[in-house]
Amino acid sequence: MSDPYGLRRVVRPRGVLPQQAEVLDPRLPMGEDELFIDVEHLNIDAASFRQLESSGRDIAGQVMEIVRARGKMHNPVTGSGGMLVGRVAQVGPQHPARAELRKGDRIATLVSLTLTPLVLEEIRAVHAHAERLDVRGQAVLFATGLWAPLPADMPLEMALAVLDVCGAPAWVARLAKPGQRVLVLGAGKSGSLACAQARKNGAQVTALDYRPEASQRLVAEGLADAALAADATRPLEVYAATRGAFDLVVNCASVPGTEMASILAAREGGEVLFFSMATSFTAAALGAEGVGKDVRLTIGNGYARGHAALALQLVRETPALQRIFTARVG
Amino acid sequence: MSDPYGLRRVVRPRGVLPQQAEVLDPRLPMGEDELFIDVEHLNIDAASFRQLESSGRDIAGQVMEIVRARGKMHNPVTGSGGMLVGRVAQVGPQHPARAELRKGDRIATLVSLTLTPLVLEEIRAVHAHAERLDVRGQAVLFATGLWAPLPADMPLEMALAVLDVCGAPAWVARLAKPGQRVLVLGAGKSGSLACAQARKNGAQVTALDYRPEASQRLVAEGLADAALAADATRPLEVYAATRGAFDLVVNCASVPGTEMASILAAREGGEVLFFSMATSFTAAALGAEGVGKDVRLTIGNGYARGHAALALQLVRETPALQRIFTARVG
Repeated sequence: MSDPYGLRRVVRPRGVLPQQAEVLDPRLPMGEDELFIDVEHLNIDAASFRQLESSGRDIAGQVMEIVRARGKMHNPVTGSGGMLVGRVAQVGPQHPARAELRKGDRIATLVSLTLTPLVLEEIRAVHAHAERLDVRGQAVLFATGLWAPLPADMPLEMALAVLDVCGAPAWVARLAKPGQRVLVLGAGKSGSLACAQARKNGAQVTALDYRPEASQRLVAEGLADAALAADATRPLEVYAATRGAFDLVVNCASVPGTEMASILAAREGGEVLFFSMATSFTAAALGAEGVGKDVRLTIGNGYARGHAALALQLVRETPALQRIFTARVG
Repeated sequence: MSDPYGLRRVVRPRGVLPQQAEVLDPRLPMGEDELFIDVEHLNIDAASFRQLESSGRDIAGQVMEIVRARGKMHNPVTGSGGMLVGRVAQVGPQHPARAELRKGDRIATLVSLTLTPLVLEEIRAVHAHAERLDVRGQAVLFATGLWAPLPADMPLEMALAVLDVCGAPAWVARLAKPGQRVLVLGAGKSGSLACAQARKNGAQVTALDYRPEASQRLVAEGLADAALAADATRPLEVYAATRGAFDLVVNCASVPGTEMASILAAREGGEVLFFSMATSFTAAALGAEGVGKDVRLTIGNGYARGHAALALQLVRETPALQRIFTARVG
């Protein structure tokens, strides 16, 4: 029986999706369209890891307790999860990746741990710097659950950092057109990938960051055509620097309050793609109306078909990105 | 000197946009690209009006005090404003509507009162039911400030109700394609306009509302092809009713928590247009990723070029919409 969203594993409350559930049942026999994973590492969401640390109690003990109680690593205080790395244990006969995956393949899950049924047998080590646990356990991935094979030719840390933001270059690949003027706000990980992809699409790319050296580095590395130094939380500063001339603005800033700068930087009839998780829906919708700007505002969906392969391939063929990610993930 | 965003009228803090300003100066001489309006009515935002009422003090007195202190009707508690109706007093020689507007023309402003410089001489009446004040005063509209002529062939209340949500049909006009299956969540004012416009574009329209009579009325009135009764805050209920088959989902629901239902109702590769101001950015972005749904998620910008004329014309040529709006504002 097909159960693409894993509804039968919801213990309580009944009738919600696994992410909203208080408790999942990770011990049911395998469904026809499920995938079982032998888990090696849990990468805990940064907000969750900080909360666990701040409680002053043993992190491993707290994680064991949460997973035992909820059937998933869903931090009840922060509401956040993380992702996992492991090896394929069994592939259901109706799972969509039946033809691609073999027992023993190493994969990362790209859906949150907040919706991933999990049993933990042991926590072997806690790597606080990397917010990662080495564990032994089993997880279940539903038919709609996203995953990516871990590349053999890239360090694990780098691959995970790329997979974490792989939606950004995938959507830029769809939206950036040759010859367009593209502005990328934020020269961090997702911003670097967005710049590289926009250039690959043939666009004229400007990188903007409040740290002049960050955007200039992208130019020096050949990932952007021009660099601007401005504070994206100050719309007038960004407007003065850009004169509202960009066809596509990609917001990869990591701080709140950058909606208006993005909108003012776009030309009339242009587009803004918001990849910052700090974006406020109302600030964007009402902000554009307040200045009478006819722009299409797109929410950066973390998924796009083929996003993981696209981002990994982009890094593979771009030594500059490898240098930038190596510097960031240590 | 051109000042399309009205920056010179910001008194404090310096260097922000008028909406973010604590105080504006409505008494400066007219700028070349400004428009002066003799104000007749203030339509106070519902949240703001409720707050003023709940304070137990005289509403007119509170409004006079806010406008005197801030130079705009920007409720310091709710942060919200409203819109105004008035007659054109003077049009600056560089204002973009110079050729269209004549002294005495009756217009409504479509930008928030939170960014509109205003002087009030007198409050003549308070109409609590309509959240409207009859006033005498002067307002300033900047070159980027949106406005619409009030039609002579439509009651004022109906025209204002249509203008309040005119972004929705304008964006539907751009996105809905002939033959597409379009689902509209919410059969209220913006939902009715969205249905009518989608049908006009040649789409197959389904209206969904938790009140069966609301969506069925749209079918009976010829504004939708089919009606569904489901609670948009229950994603699985909506998924069961729609089977995720819609090319375009237009969210006009007025309650929070409807992002997941919208995403599950869309087909793989489809689109969701969020016009509900209760939309959560992260719920939409992470929700789509959590279920591995490759959909384009668009923030409903309250503005699109020509949106007011489009919506008013749609109502003018659609007696069913006139009946629906009369029932709601009557």
